[in-house]
Amino acid sequence: MSTSLYNATVPVLKQMLLALSDVLKKGDAYAEQKKFDPSVLLQARLFPDMLALVRQVQIACDFAKSVPSRIAGVEVTAYEDTEQSFAELQQRISKTLALISAFTPAQLDGSAAKEIVLRPGTPKEKTLSVNDYALKYGMPQFFFHVTTTYNLLRSNGVEIGKKDFMGTY
Amino acid sequence: MSTSLYNATVPVLKQMLLALSDVLKKGDAYAEQKKFDPSVLLQARLFPDMLALVRQVQIACDFAKSVPSRIAGVEVTAYEDTEQSFAELQQRISKTLALISAFTPAQLDGSAAKEIVLRPGTPKEKTLSVNDYALKYGMPQFFFHVTTTYNLLRSNGVEIGKKDFMGTY
Repeated sequence: MSTSLYNATVPVLKQMLLALSDVLKKGDAYAEQKKFDPSVLLQARLFPDMLALVRQVQIACDFAKSVPSRIAGVEVTAYEDTEQSFAELQQRISKTLALISAFTPAQLDGSAAKEIVLRPGTPKEKTLSVNDYALKYGMPQFFFHVTTTYNLLRSNGVEIGKKDFMGTY
Repeated sequence: MSTSLYNATVPVLKQMLLALSDVLKKGDAYAEQKKFDPSVLLQARLFPDMLALVRQVQIACDFAKSVPSRIAGVEVTAYEDTEQSFAELQQRISKTLALISAFTPAQLDGSAAKEIVLRPGTPKEKTLSVNDYALKYGMPQFFFHVTTTYNLLRSNGVEIGKKDFMGTY
């Protein structure tokens, strides 16, 4: 069955970002209920040299905005990485949802873009077809950071389950 | 740009299973190097009521085989969940790779299947379009278990990075 890069990206990104927002709300409520500083959770890491929860959420949003933008061939909106609270992370997710919801199927599926260059001008520069960029690079990266955020909350005792991770499908 | 359910599933599943195999090899080597019983790592959990590493790998393989099988409308090959070593997990990944590599684009993209019923005959029964099944259910589930396996290894000190998670794209 045929599908489109729009179908394989925008609705999936929206589903997972909404679910991410919900698990973060539960993390925030958990900190309040257990009376600990929410920044403990925001700075939690699965291992000392892994990124903290706040960075996992920032990067998940970065892939969520860059995947459809690059497929459509439009400039990727830059975000400053200044979030320091659950409320600010929710704002980042909200603006990302608004950004990606504005894309139409025609913008992605009718895009003239044929190739995407990753890390241009660096020794790690790599050129991918738009298909490979979306399916084999962008979406796996996005899922990595969303799942790691879930795992950070879960491993700290927040009562969430796979259902919360999946959201509404 | 148009794509297909084959492109959105089989090559991505193969990429991620090969990467999963590699990170598990590093986990196995780590147990040997540090001289601890590999089953400690195989039974590791991020939280007491989360599934252990061995189950995460089993379920990742289950989604990897069921996604293309169900899209193609063929019976999903059943596996017994008997693996108790890294070597046995590698065998499960190998047989899954062989199974999914045998699918042709025509089998998936020319499939007459229009809907997929999840958990048939249970109170949680849910009917999805083939597109939604693949993109909004099967692939997110697969990524969840592959990422959680990575996080289990990483949080136990195995020296792997995002590059290892991503594999060859």
